[in-house]
Amino acid sequence: MMSDLSNPQSSETTSDLSKGAAWMGGKIMPIAQAAIPVNDWGLIHSDITYDVVPVLEGAFFRLPLYLARFRRSMSELRLDPGLDNSAIEAALQDLVRATGLRKAYVAMVTSRGVNTVPGSRDPRDCRNHFFAWCVPYIHVIRPEIAETGAHVHIARTVSRIPPGSIDPRVKNYHWGDFTRGLFEAKDAGAETVILLDEAGNVTEGPGFNVFSVKDNRLVTADAGVLEGISRQTAIDIAKEKGLTVEIRPLPLNEFLESDEVFITTSGGGIAPVARVDDRIFSNDAPGPLTTALHKAYFKWASRPENRTEIRYQE
Amino acid sequence: MMSDLSNPQSSETTSDLSKGAAWMGGKIMPIAQAAIPVNDWGLIHSDITYDVVPVLEGAFFRLPLYLARFRRSMSELRLDPGLDNSAIEAALQDLVRATGLRKAYVAMVTSRGVNTVPGSRDPRDCRNHFFAWCVPYIHVIRPEIAETGAHVHIARTVSRIPPGSIDPRVKNYHWGDFTRGLFEAKDAGAETVILLDEAGNVTEGPGFNVFSVKDNRLVTADAGVLEGISRQTAIDIAKEKGLTVEIRPLPLNEFLESDEVFITTSGGGIAPVARVDDRIFSNDAPGPLTTALHKAYFKWASRPENRTEIRYQE
Repeated sequence: MMSDLSNPQSSETTSDLSKGAAWMGGKIMPIAQAAIPVNDWGLIHSDITYDVVPVLEGAFFRLPLYLARFRRSMSELRLDPGLDNSAIEAALQDLVRATGLRKAYVAMVTSRGVNTVPGSRDPRDCRNHFFAWCVPYIHVIRPEIAETGAHVHIARTVSRIPPGSIDPRVKNYHWGDFTRGLFEAKDAGAETVILLDEAGNVTEGPGFNVFSVKDNRLVTADAGVLEGISRQTAIDIAKEKGLTVEIRPLPLNEFLESDEVFITTSGGGIAPVARVDDRIFSNDAPGPLTTALHKAYFKWASRPENRTEIRYQE
Repeated sequence: MMSDLSNPQSSETTSDLSKGAAWMGGKIMPIAQAAIPVNDWGLIHSDITYDVVPVLEGAFFRLPLYLARFRRSMSELRLDPGLDNSAIEAALQDLVRATGLRKAYVAMVTSRGVNTVPGSRDPRDCRNHFFAWCVPYIHVIRPEIAETGAHVHIARTVSRIPPGSIDPRVKNYHWGDFTRGLFEAKDAGAETVILLDEAGNVTEGPGFNVFSVKDNRLVTADAGVLEGISRQTAIDIAKEKGLTVEIRPLPLNEFLESDEVFITTSGGGIAPVARVDDRIFSNDAPGPLTTALHKAYFKWASRPENRTEIRYQE
């Protein structure tokens, strides 16, 4: 759905598209013109899934992993937009090419859609639809903050939605718990928030997984979290470096005794955390292992096997 | 945000508006033209609240109760669209008048909005906005089903999102648990679904509260559910009739031993349930007490103190 009541200055010039563009129904438009109906189940029931693949140095980074996860998410929610992975990849190619961006954040989305039977409350009566949008690269932790290590808050008034209610491995927009935690974090002067599960284990934050480093061993949560592609990349890099990675429950008390803490996200890669609440890690600065992993992440973006080149010239 | 890529047959005639209309930024349009940006936090983080007031016999039913709850929801989520209740009521009046509908389902919505600082992940950087939409009255249980009593399924693969993660009293679009349950129900041949909490107590279903009737006493859940206005109306009617109402946890085993079962919703009032899974209530038909309450609900819609008249002629 294209909108005409958006930013009046928008027009479909290349320069506008470089600030953000969307692909809807085969058309590419400035992002400010891309909209979904107010009665789309994607909005009114958050009945929608998405994925976000980074573009680094003019290539999608590990695109097949993102596409496979997106496909699993759609399948779990019984969403079928009628596009196979090659059609989706073609849409993403067209979209990024139109923006000209060489470092970007690309969201692919499938929504349940509008119910085509008036008054029906049956999800099977909705017409599912796919769309995508692309903006200049987003940092979940602002770069100037990541430079010195982020300050992160542990949410006290809210727990992560449990997997028995919403499966966090199916990437979803049910962010009410994160947003509540984020307000708590901002009130406390922190950059972002980490949520615990009901048993008090570390889960994840808004848009990232969490790692603890202790005696050169990495620990990250096994359940109740998104199985992040950036999390996987951190694990792959660590294993290549011969480090031990433990994927298991991570109790808060153990977490607070870490040597180093970092987060992983497609919006920034591997980003250091210097403080969690009042606890200071690695002398209030990015730790040495985190710094090595952070650099390795962006080196991995240069490896041909991790790259799906954007065809800018077609 | 108004869209021009909607139904090509849409135009702003009265007859179109009677099928559904929206109020956005002071303008009224056919609902198919009303849309929100694909990067509005209301969509991408389900960072949004809403309420739904019924219009019955040409008047809003118990509007002050709905407006007060909507205001509490906004306040809990720290949403401020810059409109007081009289401005919202004026918008709803204008909207319903434009449709000419005398029996309608009217949604009022406040969304976090689009982040105005490029790349920001801070909810405080978003411009909150209010909109509303109105369609012909919706029945959560189809009338032909309610006639004989609905068949309802108890969800097995999913639990209700707990209040420690998302507060159900703040009306929200986090419906992934409901939708999963609804698919389960449809697969089982049932009309709709009831979710349990993690302790096995009856909570609510997609758009309704649940009541058990046993020995002329009513029981409904005290926590982990929306404090529905229709639930309140059922309680008020029951008390007026001298019935006892218990607001407390309702274990599934007790629920299945009910004499009668009914649901309450602004989309249908008080609607009978004849079966829950394989259990049959009141001889597989609406029970006598439920039928009395169902009739009383619509009689209450005629009482002046419950009516905010629509000013159709202005």
